[in-house]
Amino acid sequence: MISIPAIKPNRPIGVFDSGIGGLTVLKELVELLPGEEMIYLGDTARVPYGVRSPEIIVRYSEENVLFLMNFGVKLIVVACNTSSAIALPKLQKKFSFPILGVVEAGARAAVETSRSGRIGVLGTEATVRSGAYSKYILSLNPRARVTSVPCPLFVPLAEEGWVGDKVARLTAEHYLRDLKARTPDTVLLGCTHYPLLKGVIQEVMGKKTRLIDSAVETAQEVKELLDRTGLAREKDSGRLRFYVTDNPEKFRRVGQRFFQRDIPKVSKVSLR
Amino acid sequence: MISIPAIKPNRPIGVFDSGIGGLTVLKELVELLPGEEMIYLGDTARVPYGVRSPEIIVRYSEENVLFLMNFGVKLIVVACNTSSAIALPKLQKKFSFPILGVVEAGARAAVETSRSGRIGVLGTEATVRSGAYSKYILSLNPRARVTSVPCPLFVPLAEEGWVGDKVARLTAEHYLRDLKARTPDTVLLGCTHYPLLKGVIQEVMGKKTRLIDSAVETAQEVKELLDRTGLAREKDSGRLRFYVTDNPEKFRRVGQRFFQRDIPKVSKVSLR
Repeated sequence: MISIPAIKPNRPIGVFDSGIGGLTVLKELVELLPGEEMIYLGDTARVPYGVRSPEIIVRYSEENVLFLMNFGVKLIVVACNTSSAIALPKLQKKFSFPILGVVEAGARAAVETSRSGRIGVLGTEATVRSGAYSKYILSLNPRARVTSVPCPLFVPLAEEGWVGDKVARLTAEHYLRDLKARTPDTVLLGCTHYPLLKGVIQEVMGKKTRLIDSAVETAQEVKELLDRTGLAREKDSGRLRFYVTDNPEKFRRVGQRFFQRDIPKVSKVSLR
Repeated sequence: MISIPAIKPNRPIGVFDSGIGGLTVLKELVELLPGEEMIYLGDTARVPYGVRSPEIIVRYSEENVLFLMNFGVKLIVVACNTSSAIALPKLQKKFSFPILGVVEAGARAAVETSRSGRIGVLGTEATVRSGAYSKYILSLNPRARVTSVPCPLFVPLAEEGWVGDKVARLTAEHYLRDLKARTPDTVLLGCTHYPLLKGVIQEVMGKKTRLIDSAVETAQEVKELLDRTGLAREKDSGRLRFYVTDNPEKFRRVGQRFFQRDIPKVSKVSLR
């Protein structure tokens, strides 16, 4: 187990994702915890994780944690559903400071929201194949009926910004047809890119379906943990630093849509 | 410069791509050169290259060449448009045996085919940004007018197998609208995934537009080089070996559509 010397409130929070998607999580964290210093790492040289095998996802995730540890972080948020679904238990075993993912918070919110117990989960291929959301939902409500749907085209649609047009609509109809027939009352957006397609997903599923955004739930969970452990930083405004493994310019440009605020400087780093 | 001891006809041909797309090139090579032994490497742990920066594309491409050199290859085919457009000159400078890409062969065929000189090039973001196709086309016909269009959604559409439905049609219409208005008589499919969408691209562009598939042209160029240098292997049937850096099962499953024949064993390797 790899541990860090001491955890103090003034230390930054580390956040990583395979690319820009995690910025939807960072956005919620910044809104809820404006006093915290945060370091964001996007592994854009190896994005996307959602199509890769578990071994590779674990290896890349560990390398991301090791990079963030250089900053003496007090806590790490795995702002990537794929990595949370597949690598989180291994990361938590290997490192001795708190590491939180987006899966548990999202699953908990879905269970609390659903009345019928029929829950849909949308995610990448790797997330769906891992069964992590299903497992966690069923541990909270063994009578839940979970239908998981991989939606690989949603990621490039979100990155192209094609979120409100006919292509997005038809793609959503294609992916959600069978799920809709099962009449879930709650659908979990199990990939950080999907909140950008909230509008079209809601339209296709119908007004009555509640959509759960893991990013919002995760930020809430981080706040609770910091308050409980006395690790919150009570300052006016925390500094944000951005690192990527490739293409800082593209990260800034496309990332604004995900972060919904200005991204100042982005530095390029090599993880090996 | 890194050189290999001796080049002999019995040595295999090395072929690499960022993933499965290069199988459309391998397919043409196998058809034209059935007696050759070939080693295919798909860098599926880091696919896609088309969204990455030039430095990263060069580094990954060099690592692929170094891997293939372990097999004592007599020739390497860069079966990836992005890597050919960006890394090929650097690879050719660094290594002392023949390395061929798909860009020159495709560009040459487009120039030979076009009567009006109005040529369209479809490719990944990185390929289009590199300007490699434009440059090469203009060096052959300085009066050509080249319009390049990045079509990022075509890759996931091809991999999902959504090549004949409405989503593909609308996506193609979206990407090709401005290009069509310029009435090119020739359109180059500058990404190894795009031949799978030939049907819908032809439909949108109209019957009169000629589509150029770099894979076919590249195989022809390889054959000519082997014949000219006395390096052709005159056997009945050459062995094919497949290596990937991740997800061999998915490579086999999705790859059949690209290769259009059976893929027997696929081995997983690590490039570092």
